[in-house]
Amino acid sequence: MRVMGVDPGLTRCGLSVIESGRGRQVIALDVDVVRTPAGDPLQHRLLAISDTVEYWMDTHIPDVIAIERVFANQNANTAMGTAQAGGVIALAAARRDIDVHFHTPSEVKAAVTGNGRADKAQVTEMVTRILALQQKPTPADAADALALAICHCWRAPMIARMAAAEAMAAEQQKKFQATLKAKAKAAR
Amino acid sequence: MRVMGVDPGLTRCGLSVIESGRGRQVIALDVDVVRTPAGDPLQHRLLAISDTVEYWMDTHIPDVIAIERVFANQNANTAMGTAQAGGVIALAAARRDIDVHFHTPSEVKAAVTGNGRADKAQVTEMVTRILALQQKPTPADAADALALAICHCWRAPMIARMAAAEAMAAEQQKKFQATLKAKAKAAR
Repeated sequence: MRVMGVDPGLTRCGLSVIESGRGRQVIALDVDVVRTPAGDPLQHRLLAISDTVEYWMDTHIPDVIAIERVFANQNANTAMGTAQAGGVIALAAARRDIDVHFHTPSEVKAAVTGNGRADKAQVTEMVTRILALQQKPTPADAADALALAICHCWRAPMIARMAAAEAMAAEQQKKFQATLKAKAKAAR
Repeated sequence: MRVMGVDPGLTRCGLSVIESGRGRQVIALDVDVVRTPAGDPLQHRLLAISDTVEYWMDTHIPDVIAIERVFANQNANTAMGTAQAGGVIALAAARRDIDVHFHTPSEVKAAVTGNGRADKAQVTEMVTRILALQQKPTPADAADALALAICHCWRAPMIARMAAAEAMAAEQQKKFQATLKAKAKAAR
């Protein structure tokens, strides 16, 4: 499975591509950070990000995009820009019929370091080790994009099992409701 | 000037097109609300909104897009979805080289009702009167999209004057800095 990890942002947007193998094996294929000038109009910044992300999608042809889920409770203004960047990236994926998954920062940290509250240095350290990189990825956005892709590779089997279980539960509830209805009808 | 007003949102996204004439004259050309099902994956909802907005842009060929500026201090989750929708709309405008302006809810309310804290009913009432509509636009998102476009038509001359004044101030500051530098050099 080929996973593209995206740490969305207007000023710096981290991009990575990782290929997963057997078990927990993961291989880094590419990593980079897109920057857009803070003084540019918002729509031009979004266009620059969208163009780069689309180029990556068309070059690497990932099976799935893993995007960091943003919360508004941090810096409100930054969060809005991050959400807007995340929106155009999800749109680019939808246009290519590529699956999109969102992971929270805690899920990503927990996946790569075993601790949902790890700091940036620990995440960078573990990403460097897991992917056997010769040097630490910089800036932090690059490391975060790699961590997101690793997180998705490792959580994917669990996500698939969860989806299967939820589908089965929904199916059984439907059957149960039908049984209830039939009984109510018979009792009338 | 032809202005497309957008009240962004995932569940309901208000769209309007207005043509401004002499003075404060404004004519409504179109208004509608795009809805996407809450249960759909985010990327599919964004794609549906983007497709509709792009169709409107290509049909009406507006000179400028007026989008409501979202703040994160309201309902955090809704605000993120609204920001994501706003992002893909700004992107569609950038791809067509259409100018984008953001107006806050207070600016819009103040422009159409004279009161920055007017309620939804007052905005709808004034929009109906200003555009001489035969019936009130519903839902509120449709009225908001019309109000946004009216707001932009009326604020546009002021925005242009502000931009000119800011450019002139920047120019004069540059000259002043140059004079200071020259004097400092002469004094050495």
